[in-house]
Amino acid sequence: MKIAVLGTGNVGSALGSRWAEHGHEVSFGAKDPAHDPVGHLAQSGPHVRVGSCAEALAASEVVLLAIPWSQARLVLEQAGDLSGKILIDCINPLAPDLTGLELGYTTSAAEQLAAWFPKTRVVKAFNALSAAAMRDPMFGQQRATAFYCGDDADAKSVVRQLSQQLGFDPVDCGGLRLARQLEPLAMLYVHLAVFEGWGGDCAFKILKR
Amino acid sequence: MKIAVLGTGNVGSALGSRWAEHGHEVSFGAKDPAHDPVGHLAQSGPHVRVGSCAEALAASEVVLLAIPWSQARLVLEQAGDLSGKILIDCINPLAPDLTGLELGYTTSAAEQLAAWFPKTRVVKAFNALSAAAMRDPMFGQQRATAFYCGDDADAKSVVRQLSQQLGFDPVDCGGLRLARQLEPLAMLYVHLAVFEGWGGDCAFKILKR
Repeated sequence: MKIAVLGTGNVGSALGSRWAEHGHEVSFGAKDPAHDPVGHLAQSGPHVRVGSCAEALAASEVVLLAIPWSQARLVLEQAGDLSGKILIDCINPLAPDLTGLELGYTTSAAEQLAAWFPKTRVVKAFNALSAAAMRDPMFGQQRATAFYCGDDADAKSVVRQLSQQLGFDPVDCGGLRLARQLEPLAMLYVHLAVFEGWGGDCAFKILKR
Repeated sequence: MKIAVLGTGNVGSALGSRWAEHGHEVSFGAKDPAHDPVGHLAQSGPHVRVGSCAEALAASEVVLLAIPWSQARLVLEQAGDLSGKILIDCINPLAPDLTGLELGYTTSAAEQLAAWFPKTRVVKAFNALSAAAMRDPMFGQQRATAFYCGDDADAKSVVRQLSQQLGFDPVDCGGLRLARQLEPLAMLYVHLAVFEGWGGDCAFKILKR
């Protein structure tokens, strides 16, 4: 396929180079082709080009958008006609300090509970697990991850032990505001289980190496 | 530990029974102990009790909240004093039809892009993967999952093939609005990588059996 990769950072380079290795015609679009350190990208496959975003876009049927959210709209508007092209959006609208998203996501059930009941210590946990995974956290040789978060270290330590005892791989995700991520994770599970036909015999895992 | 399990549905039953099997003193709090089919729960361990939510709460140091979001506040307010207790919140504030969350989450970068550029076909993909996982999606014998979503089936089919070629385990998460879940998933990854010390050599996987 003819793929434009807009953005020559870690993400664009990694995906674009690997597609190029598989024989795709990859056109990297750099912000400033004359000055960006993009020479090495041209070596990643027989059909690779490096140029401006407009040149890359013109040569493509698929567009990978791998630039910062703050630049996305302007770069796309200036790059040319997107009609009929596939736009692969791997952007996250991250706040500059990486502590949150710039769109939506201003609270969570866990934080609401903590606000309503300030004397208790809320730990978000087990929310993204099916009942089937709770009953048996083993999937072959893999343990389902039990994500949890909260503002009280001792409370989290207890929840960690409780989840370990049940055979989960417990993962501390940080303060209670991370519930803003764990609740959508559960929503993703619910959607897959209910609307995409997966049912309950699935679970999230964080792989490490 | 002394654990109150408020809610005797799938989730509460599964977790509470398993804790009971491990010797914890589990007190199930039922909405209507006289009529809920909770008798079997009393058999799940030597130190199990089934009663009202108030009774369960009074006997506990840890509280698992496993009731619907719509009832959470009222049940907790009526159940008694929560001071100093650990509240494990595994609730998701699901809309009654399971198509969304009742709190926050009203748009996504992907949907914004689609609104700005209606002639293109947006697929959200690869956004929750580190560059390291993009370079090498294998974690031992496990392939990292490439979550994607979009409203155009043909476009998604292409993205699926492109991710398969790179060695990912591609998972179609549904329509573009599922980006409201995939963007927080990436936010979770970023938080773990940057603020919890994980770095980039980690990736999400959906386990199946």
